[in-house]
Amino acid sequence: MATRKLITDEEASPEVAAVFDDIRKTRKSDFINNFWRALAHDPERLKAVWNDLKTVMGPGEIDPLTKEMIYIAVSVANGCSYCIHSHTTAARAKGMSDAQHNELTAIIGMAGQTNHLVTSLQVPVDAVFKAD
Amino acid sequence: MATRKLITDEEASPEVAAVFDDIRKTRKSDFINNFWRALAHDPERLKAVWNDLKTVMGPGEIDPLTKEMIYIAVSVANGCSYCIHSHTTAARAKGMSDAQHNELTAIIGMAGQTNHLVTSLQVPVDAVFKAD
Amino acid sequence: MATRKLITDEEASPEVAAVFDDIRKTRKSDFINNFWRALAHDPERLKAVWNDLKTVMGPGEIDPLTKEMIYIAVSVANGCSYCIHSHTTAARAKGMSDAQHNELTAIIGMAGQTNHLVTSLQVPVDAVFKAD
Amino acid sequence: MATRKLITDEEASPEVAAVFDDIRKTRKSDFINNFWRALAHDPERLKAVWNDLKTVMGPGEIDPLTKEMIYIAVSVANGCSYCIHSHTTAARAKGMSDAQHNELTAIIGMAGQTNHLVTSLQVPVDAVFKAD
Amino acid sequence: MATRKLITDEEASPEVAAVFDDIRKTRKSDFINNFWRALAHDPERLKAVWNDLKTVMGPGEIDPLTKEMIYIAVSVANGCSYCIHSHTTAARAKGMSDAQHNELTAIIGMAGQTNHLVTSLQVPVDAVFKAD
Amino acid sequence: MATRKLITDEEASPEVAAVFDDIRKTRKSDFINNFWRALAHDPERLKAVWNDLKTVMGPGEIDPLTKEMIYIAVSVANGCSYCIHSHTTAARAKGMSDAQHNELTAIIGMAGQTNHLVTSLQVPVDAVFKAD
Repeated sequence: MATRKLITDEEASPEVAAVFDDIRKTRKSDFINNFWRALAHDPERLKAVWNDLKTVMGPGEIDPLTKEMIYIAVSVANGCSYCIHSHTTAARAKGMSDAQHNELTAIIGMAGQTNHLVTSLQVPVDAVFKAD
Repeated sequence: MATRKLITDEEASPEVAAVFDDIRKTRKSDFINNFWRALAHDPERLKAVWNDLKTVMGPGEIDPLTKEMIYIAVSVANGCSYCIHSHTTAARAKGMSDAQHNELTAIIGMAGQTNHLVTSLQVPVDAVFKAD
Repeated sequence: MATRKLITDEEASPEVAAVFDDIRKTRKSDFINNFWRALAHDPERLKAVWNDLKTVMGPGEIDPLTKEMIYIAVSVANGCSYCIHSHTTAARAKGMSDAQHNELTAIIGMAGQTNHLVTSLQVPVDAVFKAD
Repeated sequence: MATRKLITDEEASPEVAAVFDDIRKTRKSDFINNFWRALAHDPERLKAVWNDLKTVMGPGEIDPLTKEMIYIAVSVANGCSYCIHSHTTAARAKGMSDAQHNELTAIIGMAGQTNHLVTSLQVPVDAVFKAD
Repeated sequence: MATRKLITDEEASPEVAAVFDDIRKTRKSDFINNFWRALAHDPERLKAVWNDLKTVMGPGEIDPLTKEMIYIAVSVANGCSYCIHSHTTAARAKGMSDAQHNELTAIIGMAGQTNHLVTSLQVPVDAVFKAD
Repeated sequence: MATRKLITDEEASPEVAAVFDDIRKTRKSDFINNFWRALAHDPERLKAVWNDLKTVMGPGEIDPLTKEMIYIAVSVANGCSYCIHSHTTAARAKGMSDAQHNELTAIIGMAGQTNHLVTSLQVPVDAVFKAD
């Protein structure tokens, strides 16, 4: 299923090919996953999203594996099956152990539960939690 | 706003008071936040959720601050305002710096964007991402 | 907060007034809640939604209180604060006890948890669960 | 996958057949898509939803293609794969170009991102944005 | 698709096997559905979630079929395909008729509609709906 | 409520001030809404998101008002109250009439309904709707 066909290397315009090259160089892998091949129908967007993602997921104050686990957490809550699969693979490549995967899943489940409990009870925010 | 009144210490049944005591002891703080006071209408559930949360968010393979950031990520995607406020406060108490908060927010935003792009394009999951 | 002002009885067009009358007659109450006053900017939609809701929530194979609890469950998962408040009030008016409210909230919380666990694990649907 | 079997033309009751006929006449096509065949287990609902949809998506102040793009936007945010496929097909039939599809997807992605950023930061609504 | 392989009976640790036994005994069926087999990578979580679910979905103030319908309602709003399939099957096993399934679906649809209308109009909560 | 304080003009770093200036110049208005003031804690992200938004929402194949309506649709489905308020204000500034606002809201409501119906029934995607 897809609402756009996937762009192969042969079909890639020079602008798309340049982004694919940068993805390969950055990831040190020849593999281009389907997300980028679907987004490649819009070369400008492809370039902008890739550059943005590279910056946000690159070196910083939060370590690379933690970044992937945060990404998975958002993707689960949003129900994005593709994103869960791709970022779980990325987290494993960055060292996520089975035990860490278990804990990640348990935290996501608990957050799902308490989010629903809080919303059902419509709990007012404690004054001490507000920054302003 | 709330669909249940908040249970004060004076109104707490012995079963509820015991959970409140354990929350205070575990957190080394006298403060009981509104979530537990709203959930206290159901003492059995209060006890079960608190014990479960204590286990899941307790010591393990993922460090305490990372656990809070994962919790925030899920809560943002689910739009739970109370949970975002309470877990952001908890993350700060566990050492989250302003720079880390910036990165956490940036990752959540990027995940929000790519989750929507992937879903709009209905990108099929790459075979290599599947565990089975 | 609101993106449209609320239509008062004085401002109601004859078409809107007729729907307000039917709401009052059906509910045996003079009170018109804010949802209908906001929707009244579009008299045709007001009428269609009210008639549809009256049919769906009216007598049938599922009892009235259960219908309200199902409505609350959807509204919690969608994070619609207004809807949670209004349908919790309606459920209480139809006899929901505190103990039932506790159980409803507990079920919604458990569903929230297992929905997140299943999605994180991307569990494939068992063949026996499929109707086709 | 499905929780109800799809109703074929042969299995359609007279009430269902009448709706199917109206769908065919309105759309000037013999094709009845699966949504209507699944909903046909409830002939009254089938008729109500079809009539409502015909009114809402029919001629008005917003042009037909824009209406389809709005429908896609909601369906993406709700993660309804079926709806994304069917309304993307409908939008193309109403003239959506590849360039417009690119822009639609880009807007949905940006909204996904800023929705998450705003929610993470819990930004208070500016007074000037409120209608009341 | 799955991010974890499913644990077979042969691969089950004694702790996992004990939970599988209790599921079989409680449900009076030899069948263990995929959710438990995926969760079994984390035996402690498997046991906690199963025990919690057994309590929440067990005898109480809300009848078993209503409990399943509430579970379905949350799962639909959260877009959890697996959960919708498994709990629809469970609801049918507990006596849900076709007519009740029709009504359940209709209520979920109406709630989906009014949740969106209310959110679009940002309707303020009526004072009488608040518990505090 | 907010998890970060809002950055005033006086507190703005030169990098932030430069973005604020560009927002003012682009919008031909002195007003900087709270979103940018909250995001300004992360000057790099502020700049990236503003530039991206300016590009995506700028001149293209979809007219400016339609772009705002699509943005509102996503924001409603995601339950982002701030975003609904800000983009409804923007849509009005770009010419959205009351009648168009009514239709926009009606479409969002219908999509909310059919998204839920489709998900409840787990309708399989028709082969003709797939691009691949």
